[in-house]
Amino acid sequence: MGLEVCKAVDAAPDLDLVVLINEGDRLAAAAEAGAQVLVDFTNPGAVMENLRWSVEQGISMVVGTSGFTQERLEQVRGWLAERPEVGVVIAPNFGIGAVLMMQFAARAARYFDSVEIIEQHHPRKLDAPSGTATHTARLIAEARRAAKCPPMPDATQEELDGARGADVDGVRVHAVRAAGLVAHQEVLFGTTGETLTIRHDSLDRSSFMPGVLLAVRAVLQRPGLTVGLDELLD
Amino acid sequence: MGLEVCKAVDAAPDLDLVVLINEGDRLAAAAEAGAQVLVDFTNPGAVMENLRWSVEQGISMVVGTSGFTQERLEQVRGWLAERPEVGVVIAPNFGIGAVLMMQFAARAARYFDSVEIIEQHHPRKLDAPSGTATHTARLIAEARRAAKCPPMPDATQEELDGARGADVDGVRVHAVRAAGLVAHQEVLFGTTGETLTIRHDSLDRSSFMPGVLLAVRAVLQRPGLTVGLDELLD
Amino acid sequence: MGLEVCKAVDAAPDLDLVVLINEGDRLAAAAEAGAQVLVDFTNPGAVMENLRWSVEQGISMVVGTSGFTQERLEQVRGWLAERPEVGVVIAPNFGIGAVLMMQFAARAARYFDSVEIIEQHHPRKLDAPSGTATHTARLIAEARRAAKCPPMPDATQEELDGARGADVDGVRVHAVRAAGLVAHQEVLFGTTGETLTIRHDSLDRSSFMPGVLLAVRAVLQRPGLTVGLDELLD
Amino acid sequence: MGLEVCKAVDAAPDLDLVVLINEGDRLAAAAEAGAQVLVDFTNPGAVMENLRWSVEQGISMVVGTSGFTQERLEQVRGWLAERPEVGVVIAPNFGIGAVLMMQFAARAARYFDSVEIIEQHHPRKLDAPSGTATHTARLIAEARRAAKCPPMPDATQEELDGARGADVDGVRVHAVRAAGLVAHQEVLFGTTGETLTIRHDSLDRSSFMPGVLLAVRAVLQRPGLTVGLDELLD
Repeated sequence: MGLEVCKAVDAAPDLDLVVLINEGDRLAAAAEAGAQVLVDFTNPGAVMENLRWSVEQGISMVVGTSGFTQERLEQVRGWLAERPEVGVVIAPNFGIGAVLMMQFAARAARYFDSVEIIEQHHPRKLDAPSGTATHTARLIAEARRAAKCPPMPDATQEELDGARGADVDGVRVHAVRAAGLVAHQEVLFGTTGETLTIRHDSLDRSSFMPGVLLAVRAVLQRPGLTVGLDELLD
Repeated sequence: MGLEVCKAVDAAPDLDLVVLINEGDRLAAAAEAGAQVLVDFTNPGAVMENLRWSVEQGISMVVGTSGFTQERLEQVRGWLAERPEVGVVIAPNFGIGAVLMMQFAARAARYFDSVEIIEQHHPRKLDAPSGTATHTARLIAEARRAAKCPPMPDATQEELDGARGADVDGVRVHAVRAAGLVAHQEVLFGTTGETLTIRHDSLDRSSFMPGVLLAVRAVLQRPGLTVGLDELLD
Repeated sequence: MGLEVCKAVDAAPDLDLVVLINEGDRLAAAAEAGAQVLVDFTNPGAVMENLRWSVEQGISMVVGTSGFTQERLEQVRGWLAERPEVGVVIAPNFGIGAVLMMQFAARAARYFDSVEIIEQHHPRKLDAPSGTATHTARLIAEARRAAKCPPMPDATQEELDGARGADVDGVRVHAVRAAGLVAHQEVLFGTTGETLTIRHDSLDRSSFMPGVLLAVRAVLQRPGLTVGLDELLD
Repeated sequence: MGLEVCKAVDAAPDLDLVVLINEGDRLAAAAEAGAQVLVDFTNPGAVMENLRWSVEQGISMVVGTSGFTQERLEQVRGWLAERPEVGVVIAPNFGIGAVLMMQFAARAARYFDSVEIIEQHHPRKLDAPSGTATHTARLIAEARRAAKCPPMPDATQEELDGARGADVDGVRVHAVRAAGLVAHQEVLFGTTGETLTIRHDSLDRSSFMPGVLLAVRAVLQRPGLTVGLDELLD
């Protein structure tokens, strides 16, 4: 992933790749190279120390490493309070398409009588439904509750076990697994006489790069901590 | 449905509507009007008597009424043995698109590692999955068994109840119910690096008319009993 | 259309249908029946007089009649200035799904390298592309210009005339016409390794009713003039 | 491509990879290794000599190299006449999904009033529409002519240049180009009240491997020349 980021930064005409830091390399190299932004795809064991150092040096940071608890986020906010001009973006998912799909789904939720999610993945996937599908279902359920939507219509009386999918917070989620698929999700909304479908197809991990570049460009204008790509998308 | 058929026949430039027989009307009117083909969308209680009379009169018949058991079909074959020049087409489903979808699905089945069915219907539907989906799954399962296909790959270890759909003869079937939908089905085949999807969308019962007209045109050239639209499609 | 509105209002548990005014009927009947909101699906020749009267009477109005120029809107604003407590919603399209599709498309536009529109309609349609597709393309083009997006990548050197669709303000639009279709539109966004698709399927004019009801419910809380369903959707 | 084939053969439990021949290597190595089938993904300059030698040696062959004219095919038939027990399969496209899509499209063509093709590819593609789309359109047009289908309905009077796509033998073809896409094609059939859609998605060249393996398995049972994957699919 780190290498993919370096390639993407290098290929962007408005950005310069000034240093590439591998596991075991000294972070100080980033300061010596004059880096304005550090991108971190390391691991939960290394990322906090990297963040502490980077904020102290006044270098902004874009972080795709996982494992951020509320406690860790508070810690980062504490460091940033000392250096209010520094920006840090921490995001669990840099796929712009996936983030927009979730935003749109949450926004459309209250206007439709029905909504179901169909996610489709390669057959090596261990969990069903996917984390993205579960998260989308929760956002939709929350929006519907806030708008006091009535329950969805469903007259099913005779159901072959599992046919109607899994129930995630009141939203039906169907998980398809087939060879030839990569990672896809469809959110289907329906009301009288019409449906609205939001579909995301992700073909490979290079799909995260536009989101990483977006964060790199944005972080210099956003002092303080930003969690999630959502806020950068407006 | 009868009225829809009359409209469709009337609108076809190569066919003439010579008589319209309502419940309670005398069948003899068909003979008097010189009908060559009688179309029957009545009910299981009336259809056998209509068939007996029509075959006896030498009038061919297209039947969309349900409830045909093997016993009933044998009875019709018996009557036709006496009048070998007469043709009868009995079909449970006159939707050409649905019939082709099932044919194609059965044919593609052996060439793909994976196949799943996603059917989507209006929320007033009582059963899940639909009869068409169940039938399609069975055709696929049969074709895969005949070709000795290995089981489909699926690494799912953690499943939220129902997420992977219903198991119909080894084929996963997902049933979506939402306002705004009518009757839709998608059969998704996948193998290394590619997927093939066959999708049928039916918007209203007028979708049966092209199949009825096809049968009316074909029945005069097909003496004897034809069951299902399949055989007429080649 | 008027009749459909009456049916929809009548079926809504929180709304009462108090009067139905046909062409030629006296508008005064609305005041006598104690109407709080008047819904107008008449024609450009009648609508302005209806608006003038209704605002004067202090009855709010939801208008789906077409033909509103800037001049006409100014006139309505003038009348409302005299009765600041009255609300009027005028919308060219009451399809919530279509309006959300356009909002989402405009919002996603700047984050993707490529975007194309595929609209699909019944073959009796006279114009290609549809008004909705053209409008969507313009919204997308505007958003991309505002964000200074570079031109979309396209290496096409050999094109069979028309293959790449129509160019609407730099956005390619493809118009499919086929029997069995009603009114559908897909907006396809693509960037490195992923695509995001927003699709709207409209099956019949009843699809406008949820939008009309939304406006009826909202107009009492919105004094003054509201143009377009957009503003009511948040 | 050659390397991909070697990997696929090696991974198949019922096949053995006995020799890998690179450019410049002696073909004789194949005979020495006891190969029963030779797979050739070379170039038009080398393939004929490989075919001559292989047939002479009694080794069957599966050929994915392009550039086969009628003349070249006749030449191969001549060589095979001398060795009637040897089989040769030459195919321009080893994608099983694409071949089935074309077969199904040709078969469905006569039963629908309308049909249009929407192909979608990455933006580095030089031609529009794709060769597969053009070929599919021709097969459909041929099937419709043979069945004496009337022209497709289309009331378009006002068309923005290109909106209705390219006309390939009477079939409208739309070519979408967008970042994030690989190679996709949709054939949309429509008649009264229903549509049937056949869609093929190809994500990478590994999608050709199942077709190559199918041919390798079949060629030993098929003496003589087989052109195209079509005949192997039944």
